[in-house]
Amino acid sequence: MDVVNDIIAWKRDGHELDAARMDAFVAGVVDGSIPAYQASALLMAMVLRGLSDAETVALARAMVASGKTLDLSALRRPVLDKHSSGGVGDKVTLVLAPLVAACGAVFGKMSGRGLGHTGGTLDKLESIPGFRVRLPQGEFLRQLERIGVAVVSQSDRLVPADRILYALRDVTATVEEDGLIAASIMSKKVASGTSAVVLDVKVGRGAFVKDLEHARDLARRCRLIGEAFSRPVSCVYTAMDAPLGRAVGNRLEVEEAWDVLTGGGPDDVREVALTIAAMLLALSDLGVDEGEGRRRAEAALADGRAAQHFERWCYVQGGTWKPGEFHRLAGREVRVPEAGFVAAVDAFAVGRAAQVSGAGRRTVDDAVDPAAGVVLAAVVGQEVAAGDLLATVYARDAGRRERAAAVLAPAFTLADEAPVVGPVVLGRE
Amino acid sequence: MDVVNDIIAWKRDGHELDAARMDAFVAGVVDGSIPAYQASALLMAMVLRGLSDAETVALARAMVASGKTLDLSALRRPVLDKHSSGGVGDKVTLVLAPLVAACGAVFGKMSGRGLGHTGGTLDKLESIPGFRVRLPQGEFLRQLERIGVAVVSQSDRLVPADRILYALRDVTATVEEDGLIAASIMSKKVASGTSAVVLDVKVGRGAFVKDLEHARDLARRCRLIGEAFSRPVSCVYTAMDAPLGRAVGNRLEVEEAWDVLTGGGPDDVREVALTIAAMLLALSDLGVDEGEGRRRAEAALADGRAAQHFERWCYVQGGTWKPGEFHRLAGREVRVPEAGFVAAVDAFAVGRAAQVSGAGRRTVDDAVDPAAGVVLAAVVGQEVAAGDLLATVYARDAGRRERAAAVLAPAFTLADEAPVVGPVVLGRE
Repeated sequence: MDVVNDIIAWKRDGHELDAARMDAFVAGVVDGSIPAYQASALLMAMVLRGLSDAETVALARAMVASGKTLDLSALRRPVLDKHSSGGVGDKVTLVLAPLVAACGAVFGKMSGRGLGHTGGTLDKLESIPGFRVRLPQGEFLRQLERIGVAVVSQSDRLVPADRILYALRDVTATVEEDGLIAASIMSKKVASGTSAVVLDVKVGRGAFVKDLEHARDLARRCRLIGEAFSRPVSCVYTAMDAPLGRAVGNRLEVEEAWDVLTGGGPDDVREVALTIAAMLLALSDLGVDEGEGRRRAEAALADGRAAQHFERWCYVQGGTWKPGEFHRLAGREVRVPEAGFVAAVDAFAVGRAAQVSGAGRRTVDDAVDPAAGVVLAAVVGQEVAAGDLLATVYARDAGRRERAAAVLAPAFTLADEAPVVGPVVLGRE
Repeated sequence: MDVVNDIIAWKRDGHELDAARMDAFVAGVVDGSIPAYQASALLMAMVLRGLSDAETVALARAMVASGKTLDLSALRRPVLDKHSSGGVGDKVTLVLAPLVAACGAVFGKMSGRGLGHTGGTLDKLESIPGFRVRLPQGEFLRQLERIGVAVVSQSDRLVPADRILYALRDVTATVEEDGLIAASIMSKKVASGTSAVVLDVKVGRGAFVKDLEHARDLARRCRLIGEAFSRPVSCVYTAMDAPLGRAVGNRLEVEEAWDVLTGGGPDDVREVALTIAAMLLALSDLGVDEGEGRRRAEAALADGRAAQHFERWCYVQGGTWKPGEFHRLAGREVRVPEAGFVAAVDAFAVGRAAQVSGAGRRTVDDAVDPAAGVVLAAVVGQEVAAGDLLATVYARDAGRRERAAAVLAPAFTLADEAPVVGPVVLGRE
């Protein structure tokens, strides 16, 4: 019986792993002394026994300690960030980052790639020609100083434990445990020097969190970790039954984000962006509450400052932003079979259709097509006649268009009566 | 998401694995297409969710199908075997095998090595100079035909899944699940051509099964697998709080088995051997019930036929059996500190002391010392005076003797009053 076997047995039998055991586990996984087969057995025991609050914090601490941490204190200002638990059509960061900066606060994010049915912010930004997401740490800091906004790819040197554990969890059915998820999210925020975070927990059929109770537990654990590192965490719960907005796909979403930044765009995207902007401004050093934060954010959208800041951000980070100017792909339309009301649009199916069209990855090595994706013509609550347009799939070849359309068509549920349409913001804490 | 991930998630979520999923798991583990980290995650899910009866049988079937099976039907007689769940000082097979054969039935066993605090039958037999435990399958069959008894090492070609899974379970804290244990035991019995089995479940502080309820569950699962393959399984539950008999260590146990075969020896060893012999004879083709089986077995011990059969068995399998003639090691005595009654002798501690003396392995690559071990001078219930001998440790060097004695001394619990001494056979089914 070795030490690792004893740690696994301890958790298997329902005991709590103290900081020493958690540190030994994470350090052993990172230095390779604990083989993957022992790590995965312990991860499964963690999933089935659950992690306590103390274990969640201990795991996050061990993960932060597994690599370098970024010190942004030279800025002498709080660096704000927002994390979404993953939704379809979620382009909120693209609106929020320049909006918060336009209001005078500092928004800095290290982000990951999209995988599966949800897109990644980096892929969306890279659909802007020339946009550089790999910045050296010094440049990240200087850009935050200069224009108050930067979104870059996660450094490999931060939280190496998360990369190893996540890759293992992904192939051993051990992703779904709130403590593991919270430690993964928050360890990266802490290590990348974030001062305060708004966590946007997506709730609904198109998200891995299906109900508010689960969302609150995940949020509570993230706040606990934040408290342990003195990083305030505010939480918002937003609906993810249908996609957010109408565009799903990298460049298509940037275009929609631009619509919101210039005062238009879908109401739900605008509402989520304004809600989170207000929460972030209240966490900043501007001395405003959420009400005042919201007013300032609305003003920045209305008077063009947010859009200007987006243009400046693209320019500084190497991108050439020309709204509407991109290589448009051929579209395949999906139309209404029979008149009625759109009762539901299944976000998961739309996300899968966008992935099939070329907008998303199946494996980490896949390339994404910046112009591919889905644009919804009809949204929940809308009355439609037979033959009306429901959505259009854009893809590089006819095969992808047909396969994606076949996934997309069943995403729409039609009904004889108008459905009750709920709010997009479900709650805040 | 690959197929294996889905199988793991299925079990993680508490669903039953059907035969197709179980076959895919076991086949993938054996052909190497399922990596160890996925196998161990599924094993942990199996341990924490438990295996149903149907899963237990499906796992056993998949394990049997993972390798060759031995066909002993040319014998035209049932081949009997006995399996013990692992105890300290358990030399019953050494008595039972020639005893059953002396009574006219056929006893054939493929056995494993000892590991940890319990010894293995092969190691005990190899303490007899020249005894060959590696017999080709044809020779195994011919020996059963000729003298009705053979005990050999497990062929690598039978149930390869068990070797791989057991090695993985051993280092991932996934040993303790009754379905996994039953499938491991019974798949080897079925693959090695056994017709009927008596399962001796050791119950008590020195065994992994601590209570009768657990023992019954394990026995029930083994019987279920036996039924699925039309191999009758009878079960006996025997006490394993103190060691069985007085000798613990390879050659020391063979000497004690010889004492029992020649009509003497400790009562508990004799009782367990006679009980199981009677059960096996009732499972044979001799047309006797257990009562008649017991009478025949007692007669074979009393009139010397069992001892003669042991000598013949050793001779045929290459061993030179000269009772009492072996290289005796220096002994280290452990004596009574204060007068009283021996209230308990901790089998686990005695097993550990024997292991430290050189009789057992810590890892599979360790060599064992045939002459090392422990002989108890006092057993539970006995009244002792200060300075009386409790036990002697035999080991090759003084260091081992002292370390083993330090482990052995606390194994004895003394009390002011005589303890109640229970029966060694706790039940049968």
